[in-house]
Amino acid sequence: MPAITGKEYIKRIDKLKNNVWIDGKQVTGNISEHPAFKGVMKSQAALYDLQHDKSMKDRMTYPSPLTGDPVGVSYLQAKTREDLARRRAMVQQWAKSNNGMMGRSPDYMNTVLMAFASSIEFLRGKENCFPENITKFYEYARENDLSMTHTFIDPQVNRAEYYMEDTEEPIAAKMVGKTKQGIVIKGARLLATQGGITDEILVFSAGGIFDKANGFAFSIPSNSEGLRFVCRESFAGGESAYDYPLSSRFEEMDTIVVFDNVVVPWDRVFYYDNIEVSNTFMGASSFQPFTLHQAVSRQIVKTEFVLGVVQSIIDTINISEYQHVQEKASEIIVALETMKALVIKSEVEAEIDEWGFMRPDRTTLQIAINTFPRIYPRFTEIIQQLGASGLMAIPTENAFKSSVRPDLDQYLQAKSRNAEDRVRMFRLAWDLTMSSFGTRETLYERYFFGDPIKLSSQLYFTYDKNEYVERVKKLLKEK
Amino acid sequence: MPAITGKEYIKRIDKLKNNVWIDGKQVTGNISEHPAFKGVMKSQAALYDLQHDKSMKDRMTYPSPLTGDPVGVSYLQAKTREDLARRRAMVQQWAKSNNGMMGRSPDYMNTVLMAFASSIEFLRGKENCFPENITKFYEYARENDLSMTHTFIDPQVNRAEYYMEDTEEPIAAKMVGKTKQGIVIKGARLLATQGGITDEILVFSAGGIFDKANGFAFSIPSNSEGLRFVCRESFAGGESAYDYPLSSRFEEMDTIVVFDNVVVPWDRVFYYDNIEVSNTFMGASSFQPFTLHQAVSRQIVKTEFVLGVVQSIIDTINISEYQHVQEKASEIIVALETMKALVIKSEVEAEIDEWGFMRPDRTTLQIAINTFPRIYPRFTEIIQQLGASGLMAIPTENAFKSSVRPDLDQYLQAKSRNAEDRVRMFRLAWDLTMSSFGTRETLYERYFFGDPIKLSSQLYFTYDKNEYVERVKKLLKEK
Amino acid sequence: MPAITGKEYIKRIDKLKNNVWIDGKQVTGNISEHPAFKGVMKSQAALYDLQHDKSMKDRMTYPSPLTGDPVGVSYLQAKTREDLARRRAMVQQWAKSNNGMMGRSPDYMNTVLMAFASSIEFLRGKENCFPENITKFYEYARENDLSMTHTFIDPQVNRAEYYMEDTEEPIAAKMVGKTKQGIVIKGARLLATQGGITDEILVFSAGGIFDKANGFAFSIPSNSEGLRFVCRESFAGGESAYDYPLSSRFEEMDTIVVFDNVVVPWDRVFYYDNIEVSNTFMGASSFQPFTLHQAVSRQIVKTEFVLGVVQSIIDTINISEYQHVQEKASEIIVALETMKALVIKSEVEAEIDEWGFMRPDRTTLQIAINTFPRIYPRFTEIIQQLGASGLMAIPTENAFKSSVRPDLDQYLQAKSRNAEDRVRMFRLAWDLTMSSFGTRETLYERYFFGDPIKLSSQLYFTYDKNEYVERVKKLLKEK
Amino acid sequence: MPAITGKEYIKRIDKLKNNVWIDGKQVTGNISEHPAFKGVMKSQAALYDLQHDKSMKDRMTYPSPLTGDPVGVSYLQAKTREDLARRRAMVQQWAKSNNGMMGRSPDYMNTVLMAFASSIEFLRGKENCFPENITKFYEYARENDLSMTHTFIDPQVNRAEYYMEDTEEPIAAKMVGKTKQGIVIKGARLLATQGGITDEILVFSAGGIFDKANGFAFSIPSNSEGLRFVCRESFAGGESAYDYPLSSRFEEMDTIVVFDNVVVPWDRVFYYDNIEVSNTFMGASSFQPFTLHQAVSRQIVKTEFVLGVVQSIIDTINISEYQHVQEKASEIIVALETMKALVIKSEVEAEIDEWGFMRPDRTTLQIAINTFPRIYPRFTEIIQQLGASGLMAIPTENAFKSSVRPDLDQYLQAKSRNAEDRVRMFRLAWDLTMSSFGTRETLYERYFFGDPIKLSSQLYFTYDKNEYVERVKKLLKEK
Repeated sequence: MPAITGKEYIKRIDKLKNNVWIDGKQVTGNISEHPAFKGVMKSQAALYDLQHDKSMKDRMTYPSPLTGDPVGVSYLQAKTREDLARRRAMVQQWAKSNNGMMGRSPDYMNTVLMAFASSIEFLRGKENCFPENITKFYEYARENDLSMTHTFIDPQVNRAEYYMEDTEEPIAAKMVGKTKQGIVIKGARLLATQGGITDEILVFSAGGIFDKANGFAFSIPSNSEGLRFVCRESFAGGESAYDYPLSSRFEEMDTIVVFDNVVVPWDRVFYYDNIEVSNTFMGASSFQPFTLHQAVSRQIVKTEFVLGVVQSIIDTINISEYQHVQEKASEIIVALETMKALVIKSEVEAEIDEWGFMRPDRTTLQIAINTFPRIYPRFTEIIQQLGASGLMAIPTENAFKSSVRPDLDQYLQAKSRNAEDRVRMFRLAWDLTMSSFGTRETLYERYFFGDPIKLSSQLYFTYDKNEYVERVKKLLKEK
Repeated sequence: MPAITGKEYIKRIDKLKNNVWIDGKQVTGNISEHPAFKGVMKSQAALYDLQHDKSMKDRMTYPSPLTGDPVGVSYLQAKTREDLARRRAMVQQWAKSNNGMMGRSPDYMNTVLMAFASSIEFLRGKENCFPENITKFYEYARENDLSMTHTFIDPQVNRAEYYMEDTEEPIAAKMVGKTKQGIVIKGARLLATQGGITDEILVFSAGGIFDKANGFAFSIPSNSEGLRFVCRESFAGGESAYDYPLSSRFEEMDTIVVFDNVVVPWDRVFYYDNIEVSNTFMGASSFQPFTLHQAVSRQIVKTEFVLGVVQSIIDTINISEYQHVQEKASEIIVALETMKALVIKSEVEAEIDEWGFMRPDRTTLQIAINTFPRIYPRFTEIIQQLGASGLMAIPTENAFKSSVRPDLDQYLQAKSRNAEDRVRMFRLAWDLTMSSFGTRETLYERYFFGDPIKLSSQLYFTYDKNEYVERVKKLLKEK
Repeated sequence: MPAITGKEYIKRIDKLKNNVWIDGKQVTGNISEHPAFKGVMKSQAALYDLQHDKSMKDRMTYPSPLTGDPVGVSYLQAKTREDLARRRAMVQQWAKSNNGMMGRSPDYMNTVLMAFASSIEFLRGKENCFPENITKFYEYARENDLSMTHTFIDPQVNRAEYYMEDTEEPIAAKMVGKTKQGIVIKGARLLATQGGITDEILVFSAGGIFDKANGFAFSIPSNSEGLRFVCRESFAGGESAYDYPLSSRFEEMDTIVVFDNVVVPWDRVFYYDNIEVSNTFMGASSFQPFTLHQAVSRQIVKTEFVLGVVQSIIDTINISEYQHVQEKASEIIVALETMKALVIKSEVEAEIDEWGFMRPDRTTLQIAINTFPRIYPRFTEIIQQLGASGLMAIPTENAFKSSVRPDLDQYLQAKSRNAEDRVRMFRLAWDLTMSSFGTRETLYERYFFGDPIKLSSQLYFTYDKNEYVERVKKLLKEK
Repeated sequence: MPAITGKEYIKRIDKLKNNVWIDGKQVTGNISEHPAFKGVMKSQAALYDLQHDKSMKDRMTYPSPLTGDPVGVSYLQAKTREDLARRRAMVQQWAKSNNGMMGRSPDYMNTVLMAFASSIEFLRGKENCFPENITKFYEYARENDLSMTHTFIDPQVNRAEYYMEDTEEPIAAKMVGKTKQGIVIKGARLLATQGGITDEILVFSAGGIFDKANGFAFSIPSNSEGLRFVCRESFAGGESAYDYPLSSRFEEMDTIVVFDNVVVPWDRVFYYDNIEVSNTFMGASSFQPFTLHQAVSRQIVKTEFVLGVVQSIIDTINISEYQHVQEKASEIIVALETMKALVIKSEVEAEIDEWGFMRPDRTTLQIAINTFPRIYPRFTEIIQQLGASGLMAIPTENAFKSSVRPDLDQYLQAKSRNAEDRVRMFRLAWDLTMSSFGTRETLYERYFFGDPIKLSSQLYFTYDKNEYVERVKKLLKEK
């Protein structure tokens, strides 16, 4: 079953009967009908359907190297710069269907897995490493269009610099045993977005580990024995697309993933019990360049959407004459074009890596990911500064259906819109920046690729400054 | 009935049967039992009860000049600097009971009315002005401890600089007639906070009017014939104090106020049909200095609370060793002490005004209100920067009561707190900055005293820079 | 005389005997020997010499389409994207020789003239327009490797929005007559950088004119009768390259240009007496894309230099371990790579214009010029924050030659440098950011392409936001 | 000789024949006639003369407790809040005479010494401590109106966190021996402002020392045997008050102080060879509250001057109509009033310390010193943003005296000023923010009380946050 449809996705997930807990209750019945998940699963299904849209098919899929069947372009292993542009076009097409609000649309995880599969040579011949398991799983996922989530952050018990866990019971997920069937994992990982509504969960170390029991990488089905997903409360405000134009559709959910002695079958283990590999694979592989290339492509579409919202507010209440309004909108334009420039540069400066794949320029993408977490929160601030009281004058769809409608029609009209459309517009701006869904989006972008402080230090240390220091030396030597 | 109790407040409001609409339904039954209002009304009732707390009575009340009965200190007309300090102590005592989250606790409106009553001489002898009506209403409100709201913003139809309404049907509330009973008002005003849960609504012009039909000031009971309050959706997340420690208690609601040919009785009209007075009374009266003195006093308590939350996060996940964490917390300390310094300066530099009342220094308070709207949003950003993923790992009270509790206990524990308390703490930080309630608080502080851009221009034009320009001239003349 | 040498440049300028005033005295003798000009003229000469450096010749010159002789690449009219890259390589090569400190190295003006020559069709057939004069002058300049300056700002008498000059005597340069010889110009223009040390001065309107007498474009020799250059004081600190590593070499001088009834010969008039053309030519021509492409290329080299200086400070006093130091250096890295990305995007998205030339993408370059004036001042702040007291412990070369040298050697040594080199390094950082030369560089970058506030408004109004507004509309229509 | 005159000051300093080196030459002859020092010494003399101005005498002096003769108020040991206000009035009076440009006017050092003298009880009975020497020196200085400088920073060899000096020859000044006459000091200290033009130099440890040889405090005459002052280059632009209105008067010079086996007489040793005291005295004494009280009082006057300059620019080129101009000026107003509020709060909350003196509130002043270094650089940025090209169109006084004057008169006139006055005004703005003098002022304010990063951390750790954390706990306990 290559390139699936939305219907197939939903059917498959419903069938898994994953162990998902929300607000103290276990999800029973079809998860796709649960109020916390139905919106986002429907939106995700729409993405899969796009693969079968005739006008899109060529953009969204390519022929499987194994079967010739159409499979998703996000699985494509890039060999040329054109492949990178093709990947970007696909990612942005999907992103447009949710205006970049779904941080974990399937292309993200497909890209992760593709990057792993393109970097397996790094593992070849190393202790407790099984590169061929990655290849097999990658092909299996691609041919079956699996949906996935992942998780690589340990619980936030203590953030001091030299903290090492010393509880008897594991907190951070670790390997606690080995059996004939596989390795046994106990503990937890934070926060799997879309946890419970994907086929599989990919688990690997983010580096910086001291204990080999914490060093592993594998993938398992979401319904594996002993695997539990514990949700935060849902930020889907309700079902009305008028009231909650974004959260009713795109609330992805974040979950704590509990491994209660989960057995990972041997053929799904990518590596284990190898500290060095655990601490270096992520950096050596093409994980970072490719996932960033996907992420930045999506963030561009999201920024376009923000600009659209900002301009809609400006038009609605007719404030374009104010210089400070022009400047605020310009800030977003500058950010948008900067992000576009960075993704282009990452492709122009892409190079074939040691294993023969075309890798986007990592440094350039590091710049992007040092930039976006700082500017996205500013976008939401601008929307609040321009929207002002309009963001609180937002009666619900039901109000418009009631006998106070004439009041609303008269008193909430705007220069260029009737009251119903004006409120619809402002509810969107509110849902984007002020609802619990909107603020979670902001937090998500702030921390998408980790702590901004650490990203900044990492950039400093990895960036080659030598040539410029030499120029200074040269100048100082001149008489 | 001087200085009422919480019970009396609730009983009185329930009895009014105000015409309040929310989510397309009219509130029927006791409004104090409605999910959208019960939390805040209970919190407001607690404020009134504090007036009868023996240890607080002297701080919260003073003897009525008419009857000697205890009445609220927020009604006190200041004659000395000590009176100002006394007013501040009272305001901050109330604020501590809600950590500054209630922007419209009754002391705010009491202060507004007190300031009007202390400025009536400005109206004496002017056309269509009735200063004695203000005095009478002020005394009536004080002796009966009325709760009030107010509204002075016109609907946001068009924000262009030279916009003048020209629809046939009024949009902004205006006087459409005069009868023996009083003046007739039609149109709407935005956004009365606590609209519908107060005894009275005070209505007056904010200045800048061109049409005398828009120029008036009066107060009417909230249940006046033809008066309707149309609510936005409620941001009370639910009733659990664990899940929604703030919104379950302090969500104040904002309402559109519709005047459907409301008759304002003559003895409640303060002035009407007088453009000049409408455009100057607010500025000439002590409205600005006194309401700002109240507001800034409250904002100080709120800032203290923010600092408490920030420090609690730092302690919980043990991050005080990081220099950038220290700097972020210091930003809040600097802001807090700056606000404290400004309120002290406003009292030290207070002067007796032309009508014999001790008026806090307006310029100093303008500085405060040019500062707080810029720093409060930064506070919420800092909380997000420090809380990080902890702000999303927030299962509900019900989750802790369910069979997944052992998972939560183990995996959400923090360095210095058990899981339940840690999540409680993070839910508070979330409710303060990321829930729909929290973001509305941010917007409220951004716009508390109007558009920050205009406040800044106003400060520039009213501030006396002459002495400093002269010093420059003097220097330039020296050889 | 195509592609001249430095010697030829200096000889030619000295011979002109331009009318230049500085500190109340007229420059007499060879201007290239005057302390205010000798440094920059020597640096400029070095640029010309680079055209004859064998290893550089192909990068710096191309065969003249008229003669086949080598002429400067900055005169090259671009037909392909490769031409753009070639132009950039040339510009950056020159920039490296002064680390981007010379804002008016000859390639800037060559580019201006090339852009005009590539846009002459716009003038064809319009009243009082002489496109062929542009062509002739362009070819003459290219074949003789003329140096030029220009000026297009009117004196800053009154910056109010609706100011129109109404003095009897002209202040802003205007046409005051016509003779057989040419048009007669009287008045002044601000601030011609390098005024007085170039062969020619190009004069044209920046748009926004109301009086046709202010609307013209022409070029005249710097020694034209009636033309005077009035200098500000020189910021060349002195001749010691140790003490003033930058200002002794790169101080370019800014001059007020006085036209005292200067006659512009007819064959040098590009247009005159045509308000519409005066207000539209700059925008319609490829002036903006090409000059920005040059400027941004140079600013990149300057940013590289800043990064080199910052890293040199970090190394010298060994502060790379501090997180805030890493973050500050990263800010510069982010800025540098962003500028690089923007210039690449401007080339990738370049398109053939209506007259057949390959024009870099204007919007992208507008982004760059909305960015750099905001970040360059931040660079200088970072240098001050990192350099701290080291920027004041800067004795002069003479001190190192005196008997206190042993004191300096002992007490000013740094972790990785001896005292003399350490002070040399810090004097450079000081000269870049704190000397009168350095702050003038900062002001220059702030205002390089005009008032940042206006650039921001211009970006807002010219940027096409429509597609994004449409996406918002589409979303709002979905159920 | 109590409260001296300017003449006495100059005579006394000239007589000392201090060992001062500048640009490789030793100062010979009267230092008050040397171009690098004459301006600031004349300005300093004017301060002393103010003490004898009849209308000022009561503000500037008080009767000596020893003799009844008038001595400077900056020596006054405060016992009441009124004393603090009196000290502030005196400091600000002096500051007005130089618009706050002299960071080291004598009141600063007088305050330091006064604070030491008011804290001697801390030293009583401790090893190698001589509190009575402080008292004696304090009285001697007060009764003779000594001028002083001080120095407490070690050379910036290596700024790594755990750096300890291990060279054989001392770099940082240390005690290298003891003789009958006194202790012997060898090494250097950075940067004594006004070094060489004061009677005495006060030397003490800033804390954080590991080696007892670095722990001492003493005062010695500036002309002590073996003491050398090595200057940076002078930033006095020249003698013309037109051209350099600030640097010609207020350039204070920074010097490296070299101790070449300097013997400190026993009766001038305050303490030595006591690590604990060296590391705690500064913190325990009233040094910080009193010097900050002086500094903040001065910074207020400086901010007033900046506001005067900004408003003068606005008036000169008529730009007050622009909203962003209003906002920028308002930023300075906000800063000014904030600083004023903080100094008032520090006095209102002053308390009698353990030794009976009225000490301004330290925390409040810490806030001020965490604020000013961040805003002062912003002031200079604002001046550049408003002044724009006007800051480069600044011909010299000589130009106005030359034959190009008619050009200048015509082309540099401003809306409200003739050309000469307009240029004078802009030269002032330039000298304040862009000349080498101006940028040194900015650096000085950035680092006035040490590294802003450390000041911020120090504030975080010393500020009592407990009450606010408790409030959070209380809220979390409520149901």
